[in-house]
Amino acid sequence: MLKLGIDLGGTTVTAGLVDENLTLLGSLTWDTGAVASIDALETRIAALCDALLEKFWVPRTRIERAGIGVPGAVDPATGVVGMLSNLALTDWRAAEGLSARLGVPVRVDNDANAAAYGEVRCGAAKRARSAVCLTLGTGIGAGIVLDGKIYHGVNGAAGEIGHRSFVPDGRACACGRRGCWERYASSGALALDAADFCRTRPDSGLARYLRQTGGAQAVFDAAQAGVADAQLLLERYFGWLGAGVVDVIQIFQPEVLVLGGGVSRQGERLLAPLRAMADEQEYTRDARTRTKIVCAALGGGAGVLGAALL
Amino acid sequence: MLKLGIDLGGTTVTAGLVDENLTLLGSLTWDTGAVASIDALETRIAALCDALLEKFWVPRTRIERAGIGVPGAVDPATGVVGMLSNLALTDWRAAEGLSARLGVPVRVDNDANAAAYGEVRCGAAKRARSAVCLTLGTGIGAGIVLDGKIYHGVNGAAGEIGHRSFVPDGRACACGRRGCWERYASSGALALDAADFCRTRPDSGLARYLRQTGGAQAVFDAAQAGVADAQLLLERYFGWLGAGVVDVIQIFQPEVLVLGGGVSRQGERLLAPLRAMADEQEYTRDARTRTKIVCAALGGGAGVLGAALL
Repeated sequence: MLKLGIDLGGTTVTAGLVDENLTLLGSLTWDTGAVASIDALETRIAALCDALLEKFWVPRTRIERAGIGVPGAVDPATGVVGMLSNLALTDWRAAEGLSARLGVPVRVDNDANAAAYGEVRCGAAKRARSAVCLTLGTGIGAGIVLDGKIYHGVNGAAGEIGHRSFVPDGRACACGRRGCWERYASSGALALDAADFCRTRPDSGLARYLRQTGGAQAVFDAAQAGVADAQLLLERYFGWLGAGVVDVIQIFQPEVLVLGGGVSRQGERLLAPLRAMADEQEYTRDARTRTKIVCAALGGGAGVLGAALL
Repeated sequence: MLKLGIDLGGTTVTAGLVDENLTLLGSLTWDTGAVASIDALETRIAALCDALLEKFWVPRTRIERAGIGVPGAVDPATGVVGMLSNLALTDWRAAEGLSARLGVPVRVDNDANAAAYGEVRCGAAKRARSAVCLTLGTGIGAGIVLDGKIYHGVNGAAGEIGHRSFVPDGRACACGRRGCWERYASSGALALDAADFCRTRPDSGLARYLRQTGGAQAVFDAAQAGVADAQLLLERYFGWLGAGVVDVIQIFQPEVLVLGGGVSRQGERLLAPLRAMADEQEYTRDARTRTKIVCAALGGGAGVLGAALL
């Protein structure tokens, strides 16, 4: 029997087929489209799943269950999504609605949680009893897996670690607070900082990379190529990211801390400075057992895999 | 049958008797004394327990088990204490050693964890499925109880939330980092800030209170009596404490957040400004279900009760 995993984003939605060996057999991504109602959203998701089954010649009867990760706060017990970020839809009875359309039981969770669960079940934190997975994107999302189970908190909204105070009275954040960590340590923040820098220095080496690649990737590429401005920017970024990573370790002491999102492709270039900071600053730097800091292994597939296994 | 709860501190050690209704029947506190070895420490604790039983006319045969909370990182599975803060003793096989001396099974955990567990089992967070208990003292300790169980992390050292970065390049901390939260938001930090203020203003109203009561309590007393300096100092303190409290909520969304330590006696005077900050800054400020912020209910007894129930 196969499982369906669905990863719903603000702009795209991906569905994938997962087999009993936890292998992602194949997937299909569509634009989320301008869905104006819950009904339209459910119709679009069901159509995507139909197209996926057709593409891989899989009859519906081989699907035993489905799971979906959504960008919003979810009550995992009821499968109700309180609010969908980016899609302006509220009180979506997702488990009920999708289950009726797909004809199989559907589990629902937050997208960061689903991705974290994917990494714990078959990725970078495989077999770890506890893991915190940070996704560095426009913001910083966190999925917390403790004792093999996703930790949700009392209202399904645990893990908003991107919105922890990092600099008192610091940069304004869309959440209403000032100085949130994600305004400094997300890859979005790094990209913005680089763009800010280049606005006044359009002829700098970094600006040339930024025009070519764009975003956080450009800063890593430029630093790698020896552009001093990029190296300085990155050093400051690592300081901000590392301080928060050490904080996560002080608080959770998870078996594994996974860094996901686009910048996790940097591998050791990202990990080495963070591990050095942990060796210096961790309260438990001399302990026999310490948190392993690793990069995500499943890339974009984590969300689909995790959702299928919910 | 009765349970023995032991709360080991750097300067004092308390033992208490807990009955089946989770009531603390009585307790006894001794100086920890200048214990130079693990053997001396175990002898002192056993003698205290003997004195306690004698004081309350309880025969040894009525004790079924014991628990101890210690200031240090513990492996709760083995009952081995890696390092005892303040007592310069390492690798104490506490469960084994104390069990041999007391003649009953002994469970061992960190003191902040034991206190948190006490508050969850029979105090301010009674019946809560998840709770984070912050103890505001010289530093800030945290006990994390999730799904009714103490959360330890991979090495028994989870919950060092006092040592999360709060101000980049801020006040130096004994842990080696700079800007740790407890250097701003512990009651010890408030007392130090008040003392600093009064050093240059020995004739101020706050200085008079500080000479009378001393410590953080003096600042609360002076502010209550209308001393403007104390009110300003307290306002700044609440800002620091509240920002970190909101952060704990963003990360854990626990059912209950308990504030313990001496300043928790302030009750609403402490809670009101923190709740106002949470209403303003929480990511989930509009959610139907939110974390309750409360003061500890068991005072000093939490550690003994929690240890007995481990």
